[in-house]
Amino acid sequence: MRCRRCSKPAVINMRQHKLALCGEHFLGWIPAQTQRFIKKYEMFDPGETILVAVSGGKDSLSLWDLLLSLGYEARGLYIDLGISEEGYSSSSLAKVDRFVEKREGARLKVVDVKEVYGKSIPQLARERPEQKTCSLCGLVKRYIMNETALEEGAVLATGHNLDDEAAVLLQNVLHWQTGYLLRQAPVLPSTHPRLAQKAKPFFRFYERETAAYAILRGIDYIYEECPFATGATTIFYKELLNRLEGRSRGAKLQFYLSFLRAREKGFFLRMLPFGPERIPSVNEGLELGECERCGQPTTAPGLCAFCRLWKVAEAEVG
Amino acid sequence: MRCRRCSKPAVINMRQHKLALCGEHFLGWIPAQTQRFIKKYEMFDPGETILVAVSGGKDSLSLWDLLLSLGYEARGLYIDLGISEEGYSSSSLAKVDRFVEKREGARLKVVDVKEVYGKSIPQLARERPEQKTCSLCGLVKRYIMNETALEEGAVLATGHNLDDEAAVLLQNVLHWQTGYLLRQAPVLPSTHPRLAQKAKPFFRFYERETAAYAILRGIDYIYEECPFATGATTIFYKELLNRLEGRSRGAKLQFYLSFLRAREKGFFLRMLPFGPERIPSVNEGLELGECERCGQPTTAPGLCAFCRLWKVAEAEVG
Repeated sequence: MRCRRCSKPAVINMRQHKLALCGEHFLGWIPAQTQRFIKKYEMFDPGETILVAVSGGKDSLSLWDLLLSLGYEARGLYIDLGISEEGYSSSSLAKVDRFVEKREGARLKVVDVKEVYGKSIPQLARERPEQKTCSLCGLVKRYIMNETALEEGAVLATGHNLDDEAAVLLQNVLHWQTGYLLRQAPVLPSTHPRLAQKAKPFFRFYERETAAYAILRGIDYIYEECPFATGATTIFYKELLNRLEGRSRGAKLQFYLSFLRAREKGFFLRMLPFGPERIPSVNEGLELGECERCGQPTTAPGLCAFCRLWKVAEAEVG
Repeated sequence: MRCRRCSKPAVINMRQHKLALCGEHFLGWIPAQTQRFIKKYEMFDPGETILVAVSGGKDSLSLWDLLLSLGYEARGLYIDLGISEEGYSSSSLAKVDRFVEKREGARLKVVDVKEVYGKSIPQLARERPEQKTCSLCGLVKRYIMNETALEEGAVLATGHNLDDEAAVLLQNVLHWQTGYLLRQAPVLPSTHPRLAQKAKPFFRFYERETAAYAILRGIDYIYEECPFATGATTIFYKELLNRLEGRSRGAKLQFYLSFLRAREKGFFLRMLPFGPERIPSVNEGLELGECERCGQPTTAPGLCAFCRLWKVAEAEVG
């Protein structure tokens, strides 16, 4: 297999694009594509500050590296979840620290969940056996990411790749979670002063492409999945989609892009059970209020889910 | 495993319902459930004539058997596709004939495609290598089923089970075929004088349940898949869904039922990119006209897809 551009040996063959590239051209192609997506999907402008949520994994570190290379004012945010199991949090922070040392211009902010809120994620999870650890952790991370982006006056960027996005889409479709489907997008504009804009510049890259980028750029990242994520449903959906991709090249990408297209063009109108003139107000009761404690928008009455979580935790301590 | 009703050894364990039954109680449960679905989804009334499209397979023969047992005026329609490969059409017709001989009250109508229209399905397919045989065959069958149901003044019933329906739903979702998604339903009411009402009374049964029903009722059916369907996409999607079901009991059923619920409740409104007041006319250009040759409703100008198919075939003969 030869590079399409220069005929040197290719390091990657992206079958969904019928495009094989050598290391050098691949390292040119990925940033050019990313820049194209940032513009096409109106993720952010050159003057804006970007806060990249980094976990120590290949996607987020690659994204940070790439945004810096493209000249963006991109800062890093590492959320220390306090997962001592298998030394997960300390190893992943070590990878992030190593990246910051090597990479000129990389400024990192660390938020330690236990230090700031009193308990680590495993402690919280143990107190709430009825709740899934991943969903509880997701809630905490989303809250802190949003708060920190607001503090920094930044757009929040996450390293989600196509495999991540397609797996969540499949999961939401298998349960027809139309509420979640609505919010699934490469960019979520700020719809409230207390909500930061969120963007996923890598959402069109396959997982193997972000991994190849990290390796070729010499980025040392954490390979291990979080010890709590073992057997996680998302991994199962990713396997299903890879079987599909194996049978039909580009199927994952088409699945996600045709969803975006159908939504953008209003095709879901066809799936309403009655004419537009009789459309009920299905969003009734979904109006945003503000959390009494932190002021973040919430659909729940009184406290938002995040503050409810910690209030119960405090009550249990007291 | 014991029968929930009488503690005799169970012949089937329907894990999605947490229900194990012996042969006797299973043979009571299936018709009772079917009758419940016929009523709940307003498929047809006791006085109406039902035309059951039978292929010789377990689903359609079981459905015919069951509707007769429930006292419906249920006639059979066998469409002879002229597939001589592996003796497929003749073996399947033989199974249907055997059923009719044994089953009191079973009246069968046979439409021979070659006899009526001049060519068998394999002949048509050979002349159209650019078209998939399954889609061409589906077009011909749907047309004849509809025409025959109209002639008999009947509601058309097909033996599609949940595995069939969920596989098609998954396929349509993976490509976001919103037009097809609209028409996917357990019952399609007649929206035009030349369109018969269509119903799928078995749409909530798993494939293994209709197979168990056929076996327990001593119905001899054809096991083989159509020789043209080898490696068909639907079979692949069924496998994916079975992997999902193996991981999460009832997942196939939930996938389909939550889709129906989301559509019925108008939840797809949430997936429009703008407010209801700005909804565009996405159905523009989809108004039904009538075929110049046969009068069936069609979105195509001039001839419907079925008549176009045969007109080309005639031109090639002439």
